[in-house]
Amino acid sequence: MKIIVDAFGGDNAPAQIIKGAIDALDSEQGFSLTLVGKQDVIERELLQYKYDPQRVSIHHAPDVITNDDSPAEAVRTMKDSSIVQGFRLLNSDPDYSAFVSAGSTGAVLSAAVILVKRIKGINRPALAPVLPTVNNSQVVLVDCGANPDSKANNLVQFALMGSVYSKEVLGIPNPKVGLLSNGAEDSKGNELNKEAFPLLKEDERLNFVGNIEARDILSGKIDVVAADGFGGNIALKASEGAALAFLEILKKGILAGGLRAKLGYLLLKPVFKMVKNTMDYNDKGGAVLLGLQKIVVKSHGSSKAKSITASILQAKNLVEAGVAQKIEKALMI
Amino acid sequence: MKIIVDAFGGDNAPAQIIKGAIDALDSEQGFSLTLVGKQDVIERELLQYKYDPQRVSIHHAPDVITNDDSPAEAVRTMKDSSIVQGFRLLNSDPDYSAFVSAGSTGAVLSAAVILVKRIKGINRPALAPVLPTVNNSQVVLVDCGANPDSKANNLVQFALMGSVYSKEVLGIPNPKVGLLSNGAEDSKGNELNKEAFPLLKEDERLNFVGNIEARDILSGKIDVVAADGFGGNIALKASEGAALAFLEILKKGILAGGLRAKLGYLLLKPVFKMVKNTMDYNDKGGAVLLGLQKIVVKSHGSSKAKSITASILQAKNLVEAGVAQKIEKALMI
Repeated sequence: MKIIVDAFGGDNAPAQIIKGAIDALDSEQGFSLTLVGKQDVIERELLQYKYDPQRVSIHHAPDVITNDDSPAEAVRTMKDSSIVQGFRLLNSDPDYSAFVSAGSTGAVLSAAVILVKRIKGINRPALAPVLPTVNNSQVVLVDCGANPDSKANNLVQFALMGSVYSKEVLGIPNPKVGLLSNGAEDSKGNELNKEAFPLLKEDERLNFVGNIEARDILSGKIDVVAADGFGGNIALKASEGAALAFLEILKKGILAGGLRAKLGYLLLKPVFKMVKNTMDYNDKGGAVLLGLQKIVVKSHGSSKAKSITASILQAKNLVEAGVAQKIEKALMI
Repeated sequence: MKIIVDAFGGDNAPAQIIKGAIDALDSEQGFSLTLVGKQDVIERELLQYKYDPQRVSIHHAPDVITNDDSPAEAVRTMKDSSIVQGFRLLNSDPDYSAFVSAGSTGAVLSAAVILVKRIKGINRPALAPVLPTVNNSQVVLVDCGANPDSKANNLVQFALMGSVYSKEVLGIPNPKVGLLSNGAEDSKGNELNKEAFPLLKEDERLNFVGNIEARDILSGKIDVVAADGFGGNIALKASEGAALAFLEILKKGILAGGLRAKLGYLLLKPVFKMVKNTMDYNDKGGAVLLGLQKIVVKSHGSSKAKSITASILQAKNLVEAGVAQKIEKALMI
């Protein structure tokens, strides 16, 4: 299996991306990597690592799309960027199965939609992060930003793709799907949700459990949250923001709490570390762009080596599980 | 000043509501309360408190709308419910300035829209909770659920009402307004946001700072978040859910962490209490329904006495600050 890695995407590129790539190779067999970006820089970075040269190749791409570039325009004009080159490679060669990037989300989405074939029957690909729950289970949130103006039939497709992901990759036998809404009652929702609700309810391919409030996303009660890209993005980012605020206020309190608080903190440090590890979904991989014939994993822009390693291994899992093929099959039932 | 309290709204009615009402009377002067609900039950509850009988009256309402009732239908058919009776009283008598309820949000919204006059120039009232930030400031989130399908001009009105609230009640001189979106760049947003963005930008009555991500709501960078009711609700509930998940995982970790973790927890207990007090916005009052000629405060359904007291005193502040009149004035500029 060949996986392409955008060596110049994200805040910590290329050093942390390349370190993450090498760590991925060290931890699992059965795949090779193509690093896309400035050849000389990548070669120099690679000098510090030991690795099997058969498992690493470089694809030269001199340009870098940043978050300051307008995504659609950058994808159209910066043909030699690592993102565009990475996707071209993915599309052109059947040997390549997946692409991993921590670069501009907008550019990754734009390029993916233009350059990678969609699964037959899917109108819009969707971005799907996997979040931890309080029950030690995982929930797939789809879409979380690829489609700020979704249609009702898109939401059904998101639910279906999320269910395949949950079943085939996370091992949930009959994933419970909830529709993200402004209340749990059947009557709740905006116009889009009210149109999508009966479609989801009647769809025999889905185990649809009804509307869910954003409050219950991490509760472990559901396995897949179907949302339009705008609402899903707000849910994801608000959760992140609240967790960060919680940590920040806790930190200030500990700093202001004198010796007693500091001692308490030291004693609780392993627990805090566990909480951080549980909650920090970025460390466990990236958001998958579902609906394409190939696997695309968007790692967080602030990814360090650990997240990149996780994203690469996640991409490998998704390819092995045949998620794209299984989505196509699920659509045909 | 006369404030009406729904004595039968919420999970802990009537005991905690009545306790909260009496506590409010004890802590501040300058207002009286009318408790709406089953007269005999209220009278019996009141027996256990000492209070100035001049400051408490009862308005009999034998029915109770619950969360199981369909809000619009319940408001139409249950004329003798505490919510409908409370709003009728508020509307009929100019002496009454405010209504506080911890009852069904849907029913409070439906009844308010039907029974209370809107401020001239406001098309849709909006629900506005005040949230804590990491900077020890406060942010007004408007709308958080009254209008799941807002229009662009509604968003401008929400921004304006939130600004008046921030300035007149929270004392922020020139409140910074952000538009809740799926990214901070100007180009981000769904169709609604893209239509609202230029209107907000051009509006000279507003200090509009652009799009904000849900991640930044609690950051203290902005004072007012304008959102359509669907997205605002998701942001609010996702934040609550993430904070609860954080606490739950922390609790499990402490329980599983043996003696060391338990000792650490005991030492950090005052800090945890401070964090809880800071984050728990429900304890500081309710969400205000802005855009009506009278003040309506919706307290959380799970409110205990402390929240009810806070909501009553919040209603008093809002009346004293002349928020409704100032919104009307702001609209005329």
